[in-house]
Amino acid sequence: MIRIGLVGCTGYTGLELLRYLSGHPHVQVARLFARSHVGCLFSSVFPGFVGLDIPIEDLDSGFSEGVDCLFFCLPHGESLERLTPEILDSGVRVIDLGADFRFHSLDLFFKAYQTVHPVPALMKEAVYGIPELFEEKIRDARLVANPGCYATSAILGLWPLVKQGLLGRLPVVDAKSGISGAGKTLKSESMFCEVDGHVSSYQTFVHRHRYEIADILGADLLFSPHLIPANRGIFSSVYVSLKVPMSWNELAAMYREFYKGPFVQLLNQGLLPSTQLVNGSNFVKMAIQVSSDFPTEAVIFVALDNLGKGAAGQAVQNFNVMFGLDPMAGLGALPFYL
Amino acid sequence: MIRIGLVGCTGYTGLELLRYLSGHPHVQVARLFARSHVGCLFSSVFPGFVGLDIPIEDLDSGFSEGVDCLFFCLPHGESLERLTPEILDSGVRVIDLGADFRFHSLDLFFKAYQTVHPVPALMKEAVYGIPELFEEKIRDARLVANPGCYATSAILGLWPLVKQGLLGRLPVVDAKSGISGAGKTLKSESMFCEVDGHVSSYQTFVHRHRYEIADILGADLLFSPHLIPANRGIFSSVYVSLKVPMSWNELAAMYREFYKGPFVQLLNQGLLPSTQLVNGSNFVKMAIQVSSDFPTEAVIFVALDNLGKGAAGQAVQNFNVMFGLDPMAGLGALPFYL
Amino acid sequence: MIRIGLVGCTGYTGLELLRYLSGHPHVQVARLFARSHVGCLFSSVFPGFVGLDIPIEDLDSGFSEGVDCLFFCLPHGESLERLTPEILDSGVRVIDLGADFRFHSLDLFFKAYQTVHPVPALMKEAVYGIPELFEEKIRDARLVANPGCYATSAILGLWPLVKQGLLGRLPVVDAKSGISGAGKTLKSESMFCEVDGHVSSYQTFVHRHRYEIADILGADLLFSPHLIPANRGIFSSVYVSLKVPMSWNELAAMYREFYKGPFVQLLNQGLLPSTQLVNGSNFVKMAIQVSSDFPTEAVIFVALDNLGKGAAGQAVQNFNVMFGLDPMAGLGALPFYL
Amino acid sequence: MIRIGLVGCTGYTGLELLRYLSGHPHVQVARLFARSHVGCLFSSVFPGFVGLDIPIEDLDSGFSEGVDCLFFCLPHGESLERLTPEILDSGVRVIDLGADFRFHSLDLFFKAYQTVHPVPALMKEAVYGIPELFEEKIRDARLVANPGCYATSAILGLWPLVKQGLLGRLPVVDAKSGISGAGKTLKSESMFCEVDGHVSSYQTFVHRHRYEIADILGADLLFSPHLIPANRGIFSSVYVSLKVPMSWNELAAMYREFYKGPFVQLLNQGLLPSTQLVNGSNFVKMAIQVSSDFPTEAVIFVALDNLGKGAAGQAVQNFNVMFGLDPMAGLGALPFYL
Repeated sequence: MIRIGLVGCTGYTGLELLRYLSGHPHVQVARLFARSHVGCLFSSVFPGFVGLDIPIEDLDSGFSEGVDCLFFCLPHGESLERLTPEILDSGVRVIDLGADFRFHSLDLFFKAYQTVHPVPALMKEAVYGIPELFEEKIRDARLVANPGCYATSAILGLWPLVKQGLLGRLPVVDAKSGISGAGKTLKSESMFCEVDGHVSSYQTFVHRHRYEIADILGADLLFSPHLIPANRGIFSSVYVSLKVPMSWNELAAMYREFYKGPFVQLLNQGLLPSTQLVNGSNFVKMAIQVSSDFPTEAVIFVALDNLGKGAAGQAVQNFNVMFGLDPMAGLGALPFYL
Repeated sequence: MIRIGLVGCTGYTGLELLRYLSGHPHVQVARLFARSHVGCLFSSVFPGFVGLDIPIEDLDSGFSEGVDCLFFCLPHGESLERLTPEILDSGVRVIDLGADFRFHSLDLFFKAYQTVHPVPALMKEAVYGIPELFEEKIRDARLVANPGCYATSAILGLWPLVKQGLLGRLPVVDAKSGISGAGKTLKSESMFCEVDGHVSSYQTFVHRHRYEIADILGADLLFSPHLIPANRGIFSSVYVSLKVPMSWNELAAMYREFYKGPFVQLLNQGLLPSTQLVNGSNFVKMAIQVSSDFPTEAVIFVALDNLGKGAAGQAVQNFNVMFGLDPMAGLGALPFYL
Repeated sequence: MIRIGLVGCTGYTGLELLRYLSGHPHVQVARLFARSHVGCLFSSVFPGFVGLDIPIEDLDSGFSEGVDCLFFCLPHGESLERLTPEILDSGVRVIDLGADFRFHSLDLFFKAYQTVHPVPALMKEAVYGIPELFEEKIRDARLVANPGCYATSAILGLWPLVKQGLLGRLPVVDAKSGISGAGKTLKSESMFCEVDGHVSSYQTFVHRHRYEIADILGADLLFSPHLIPANRGIFSSVYVSLKVPMSWNELAAMYREFYKGPFVQLLNQGLLPSTQLVNGSNFVKMAIQVSSDFPTEAVIFVALDNLGKGAAGQAVQNFNVMFGLDPMAGLGALPFYL
Repeated sequence: MIRIGLVGCTGYTGLELLRYLSGHPHVQVARLFARSHVGCLFSSVFPGFVGLDIPIEDLDSGFSEGVDCLFFCLPHGESLERLTPEILDSGVRVIDLGADFRFHSLDLFFKAYQTVHPVPALMKEAVYGIPELFEEKIRDARLVANPGCYATSAILGLWPLVKQGLLGRLPVVDAKSGISGAGKTLKSESMFCEVDGHVSSYQTFVHRHRYEIADILGADLLFSPHLIPANRGIFSSVYVSLKVPMSWNELAAMYREFYKGPFVQLLNQGLLPSTQLVNGSNFVKMAIQVSSDFPTEAVIFVALDNLGKGAAGQAVQNFNVMFGLDPMAGLGALPFYL
């Protein structure tokens, strides 16, 4: 059994990660850390988590003792302080679900966060955690920077076209996100009455994840996020122009070639993409639409669970790669149909 | 008082139209027609409609007697049979909320519906019912073809750019629709459990409203509809390229010049568009986003209520124009904040 | 035109009250007061409120000048400080939508709020604002204490039985409330992700509105509130035992005799009660169920909009009584079917 | 591996059962039967069910071959025709998730369904499938009649009081149900727009599950079902009078004594019950509320997932008992927090 610790266990991402890890055959949840409820048994604070009778420890505790791997689920900016080189040097491997170590380019990090990265060496060392793209590096990484939901959906949708040099003009990623993506922090925009029944957009062009996506892809995009009244799910509609006309079969063959693993699946032609097909799981469903009226246009739909492949599920996927486990370990449960 | 009749009073559009008309100071609801509940008092079938104690008549009744204006809210295809030239010749004016008379081009009608239009003369006579664009013609029309929600949002979003010759390459309209747009017909995709918590896309490129929009605009588009778990609201994100670089101020000035009436409003820079600002009303909120990184790209957001400006509200707006009434008559109620 | 001022205009109750008052034919919205957004035009903060171009004033402004009637929509406890006898002495009439002046019994007030009422004279003077029960006193009141949603639904459901001496053992009121009843204050229990898809109960037996209901009714009850994932609506299921067996017809005749006004309506036997019949309006729908298996048991269902008859709608109804206006003035709009 | 077949695999209960069984360590899903999609691979019809590449067979196929256990998920009435004695005689054990074999009393069955039971011998043989109450009989049963969500919640809530002879006058069960309880059949009341944002009640006193509950309990009740806008979850508020005054501690001790197994859990005093604690799982959370003001009144809250402990989860629990497996096999996954 691999002993894991979770730093930041009470937010939505931390809770979902515990749901996955509790069912993982090779994991022992050894230590839990949070700012609130310190000293309480986890299962007494969250009675739905039957059997997780582990005390919550302070964030100022030393994290490394008694664990083989640490997951960090802290608000953006906090990993910079708490995820120290000492932890890595002690031999504990780390998967950070926050945004602090996801960039390659110091410049783009600055554009996104308006601050100079304080630990550039660690940022350089960190491996971007999409196993479909970077499995080799993840295998030996001490620190994996687990991407978020917007970035995972946009990068998966655009990657084959970019890598093949087939992407034409500036792509548009119109992303529709469930509300849990905004986290558990109290804010007006996350209140039930403000959200229920409404669709809205925000931070067109300037959302900080645009810069992260551009950094990893090596290509800029028009990123346009929206909020929809659902608790889970990301549905990204990716509008691309192609350098040459391509048929559905050609595009499908190319995407299937790039995504051979068990989690990213292209729907057969005619099947409709929906977050219903993936919520509660680490699976991604993609669909491609083309039209003979516009032979160099295509739409790539990417549906994933923002808490699954967009956060906790992908973290477990990275963990399995890092520790040489079966890719499906802890990730075999089917999505919720309802 | 203008006596109105409503043909198809039990669907979502018909019910919403009755809500508007019941509060209209110059309207007497004189006759109601439907396929079901014939012979029952309307208020006994729909107890929320307090005071509408009018019997529901059969669809095979003659519609013209005792009314000055008829609203048709029938499923697509049925107006072709029931909305006869005789009705118009009898002096009754008609507003058709169905899709049967909305096209100018017989060709595009065929592409959309895969059938030859059986009454082309009436189709030619019908005036497309967006008062912001065609008020003069609506004023004297015998037959107004009231557009639906997708078309209204896309056309309003693109019209100024098309008319000014500023629209570059194929625009993308990524539309997010509430579920009432699919009507009251029983179908799996409209069931609560299939919809709740999920986002999906359908009929990319080939939705029949693409052809209607293209017909009215005189310009094609990549139309990409989505379903979101809300009962009301259309939120269209319109991605355009501009023939020349334009600032927010230039675009805003142009849109404000085109939309001087009371219903279509451009939000000030920085305010976030949401269907929350319009649901329950005939108002439209638009927002424009540009970025100095991409000087010839712009995003136009259009939020409207699919049952309001996208159906019943616009029908009342057309009615007010046709009968020379105050534009706000019956349409003055504020949107629902919740 | 009667000039009104609204103290606390940015919460859900205040916003809904503005929606009603904006459509009221005898009202001029003269002054708006709030803690936040002071100095801004109301319509620039809430762009859905088209035309409400009135500056928001500080809560420390004098309220009385330039108004004939003041509505207070402050959090519980704040009216005690800001609703001063001087305001009433200046001739301005007041409708308080908060809870501070709703009790007759100082004892029960203490039980509910664990604090001694600081202005008992004003509490004694205040008239409880359910016009169906206390119209005469409301007509001449200087201060009306407008009840909330739970209390209105429970009192309306039990009143005829209590007044006729027919109520047997302790009645049970199982109330299901939409989330807007908790107000706009940021709290975990009102977040979309915590609420969506879940039903829960809270404060069984000890909710403070139990004491208010008991005070007005003169009879205690087992009050059991629940939260359901909807933004509007209260649905109270009232379980009563009768001192003598009664048929549906007898009960219906009694309830209809008590509620002759336009707003409280008993559904015909067999029609199903739902908040869908009332949301967005001041209407109340009641239904009665009996069974020959249990001749002295009955269930009274009461459906109302917590923001309508449960808050803002009832405030307008009280206003109409106080100022001798048509009972339906400003309240004629039909409920939202969707 | 135990080979299972599922008759009726495309409804909500069947789909949820497949979700559970796919993760069960001792189960091989061998055969799937349905009315629709016959001949298609299950995973091509339901692409979320990754890996379930089994063809759907006709309902007229013989069910018994190649399976050790059959689950029936047919609409009420259909098991009477298709679940034949021959199947049981062939040695295949059966768990019926329909209602056809749940009664002991032919009389109450008639009251509930207005029809004489056509196979009374099989009805007598069937064991009612709540393992917390009838584990011994289930162990050896050829046919288990798996109860539904309403019945499971009401029976679990009342059982200890009834068995101890402590239940006073007619108890009230006010049940709030998510929409999936109504199944996948197309009907107006299950449409998104009719449900979203609304609460309603139906079939007070006369719902057929009242008779089933009374049959199993040996005590009648006032059963009052409600629909709430959520896809999953049953929340039953059970109002009881006690023959003698009882404290929270006494009641809690009694309930904990009755429910020692892993799935039914009483919350500690002060914790709030919610369907959020159980959705997606076979767990049941109960809470007890008492008040010193009314020493012989108590409220028992029962929260469970209508598709979990109220259908598919309980079916797996029964299966584990019947085949002598670990009670948690296939049921260990935690509830969804979101």
